[in-house]
Amino acid sequence: MNVIRFQENPLITPQQVKPYHNDHEVIGVFNAGVAEYNGEVLLLLRVAERPLTTDKEVIKAPYIDLSSGTGKLQMAELDLKDPRYDFSDPRSITYAKSGRAAYLTSLSYIRIARSKDGRHFTIDDEPLIYPENEREVWGIEDPRVTQIDDTYYIQYSAVSPEGIGVGLISTKNFSSMKRHGLMLHPENKDVAIFPEKINGKYYCLHRPVPKGIGRPEIWIAESDNLLYWGNHQYLLGLSEDGWDNGRIGGGAVPIRTEKGWLEIYHAADKNNRYCLGAVLLDLQNPAQILAKTKEPILTPESDYETSGFFGNVVFTCGAVVEEQEITVYYGASDTSMAAATMNLEDIFSQLTYR
Amino acid sequence: MNVIRFQENPLITPQQVKPYHNDHEVIGVFNAGVAEYNGEVLLLLRVAERPLTTDKEVIKAPYIDLSSGTGKLQMAELDLKDPRYDFSDPRSITYAKSGRAAYLTSLSYIRIARSKDGRHFTIDDEPLIYPENEREVWGIEDPRVTQIDDTYYIQYSAVSPEGIGVGLISTKNFSSMKRHGLMLHPENKDVAIFPEKINGKYYCLHRPVPKGIGRPEIWIAESDNLLYWGNHQYLLGLSEDGWDNGRIGGGAVPIRTEKGWLEIYHAADKNNRYCLGAVLLDLQNPAQILAKTKEPILTPESDYETSGFFGNVVFTCGAVVEEQEITVYYGASDTSMAAATMNLEDIFSQLTYR
Repeated sequence: MNVIRFQENPLITPQQVKPYHNDHEVIGVFNAGVAEYNGEVLLLLRVAERPLTTDKEVIKAPYIDLSSGTGKLQMAELDLKDPRYDFSDPRSITYAKSGRAAYLTSLSYIRIARSKDGRHFTIDDEPLIYPENEREVWGIEDPRVTQIDDTYYIQYSAVSPEGIGVGLISTKNFSSMKRHGLMLHPENKDVAIFPEKINGKYYCLHRPVPKGIGRPEIWIAESDNLLYWGNHQYLLGLSEDGWDNGRIGGGAVPIRTEKGWLEIYHAADKNNRYCLGAVLLDLQNPAQILAKTKEPILTPESDYETSGFFGNVVFTCGAVVEEQEITVYYGASDTSMAAATMNLEDIFSQLTYR
Repeated sequence: MNVIRFQENPLITPQQVKPYHNDHEVIGVFNAGVAEYNGEVLLLLRVAERPLTTDKEVIKAPYIDLSSGTGKLQMAELDLKDPRYDFSDPRSITYAKSGRAAYLTSLSYIRIARSKDGRHFTIDDEPLIYPENEREVWGIEDPRVTQIDDTYYIQYSAVSPEGIGVGLISTKNFSSMKRHGLMLHPENKDVAIFPEKINGKYYCLHRPVPKGIGRPEIWIAESDNLLYWGNHQYLLGLSEDGWDNGRIGGGAVPIRTEKGWLEIYHAADKNNRYCLGAVLLDLQNPAQILAKTKEPILTPESDYETSGFFGNVVFTCGAVVEEQEITVYYGASDTSMAAATMNLEDIFSQLTYR
């Protein structure tokens, strides 16, 4: 499998992004949705900002306060010695007794990076999508962008103390945005809407995270209007061993090829090493798997992929296709953005048919 | 609060139900959906059957095997000393290492009990709804029945190793049944579809069980066609203390009253004591809570409610309303069916308005 990483990698790092909030640092700019618009490649960056703190004994946890009607960033200040909390996970603070999430350590929102050549990006100063309702008070994460005709549908993780659901926003111009509500209830992530109707129905891949029975695996659902989803079908599960035995979820928006719908997805093993794989779905019935790669097509190898805020992660939310070449944009180590090109035939040659 | 339990309680016990499977015992006949049809009250009973075993060292775990095309009941035979499994929960067998569910100890399906007076029931010998696809191989549980015009929509827990989703079946006559697929993805339970459109939309209550962030609480969703659901909104959460601090979920199909939609729901505390409460929702916008009972309206008190397969449980999936009187049918201790009448005004008098 011939993967050519961009020489410019990492394409965007936290150091290049000016914090939107005063007294904050950008700790991650990653897992971007990808759109082609007006001759440019747009990356809808997940920007994670963390409050700066001067007191080593105190951690500040950000959230959006809606009590005044409009959202306002607030900080909970927690004493690191407070026995009520468990501070061991760098991403979240949990109640020590129940294990329940109490706060996240950073707030994510979406900002646009623009590029004419897909390699050199200019980053907007203002957020494109910022938390504004009860379902988003802990942030907005990991967007995918599906273009259907002249409308772009943005599917994102809407995070709040009540759970991680999937929000839907549409736009025609990446300036005026329309929120439609949650398309999927908690706990769900990693949604990728197919870019066209198939036999009269919209489809999406999604990744529920059940608590009691079941594991984080890929499902597929149908819709008439992109907001209401049903006829959920189990699609692709974990292996018992190997690179994909921990969790698995949709990645890039599915790509129509002559052989089938090509989905580049992510999977992690039990050690939280995230790789990318490819699966081929039937063109007429995408709930039917035709083939998949046994081995990953992209693994964390470069230093920006192996170390960072959460190392050993490559995670894609979108790709650009030109002729036979796919440029996969991906988050590296929950820290930076990177990209790599792959040849379509090369991916096909890795597929094992069922 | 004046609750009159039926003198005939428990109305149906496992001893009264002949096992459908050879060499099985009925261990539970409970959590029945309720329908009024052809002048009769129908209880769509959840019947749980457990394989009989002669060997005290061995446990038999039932599941539906679809490998031959049609479903066939099969048994895994597990040595109780096998260290790979944890047998401590009477309801399920888990992998000792991962805590993941390996088997359930019983198989549930749906059988009808019929009554002219709502008190004395005759039970069909054959199942009404029996597992028949991959999403149901571990059983069918806790149905609710919503009548819309002349069609009855049955919402039920579809249980498989891949998770607990919500299946949808429609029927006009409780004989010819149509499966529509999963209306909600795992993990979700306790769905109750409203019996009419509200401002042009169908609504349902549902109860996701998120793994990472969030708790088992009541949400509400909209639909155009009863199979595809979206615009999920958080509705009613747990309290920090008291009878409803463990889990909470929809119960009976919501009842239209002049004051609002009356929902009789269940909640459990952290000790798994399940009670019933009532919440009143806005007639025009059921995502809006008007009032709720602070204290439960029904608690486990009678012996059939306090002891059984899983004691201290009252759990409703349906009610019948006649004038000002509600007859709530409920499962008792995951073992038997019971019923109690309550006066509508009495419930209203317990409501605290927000």
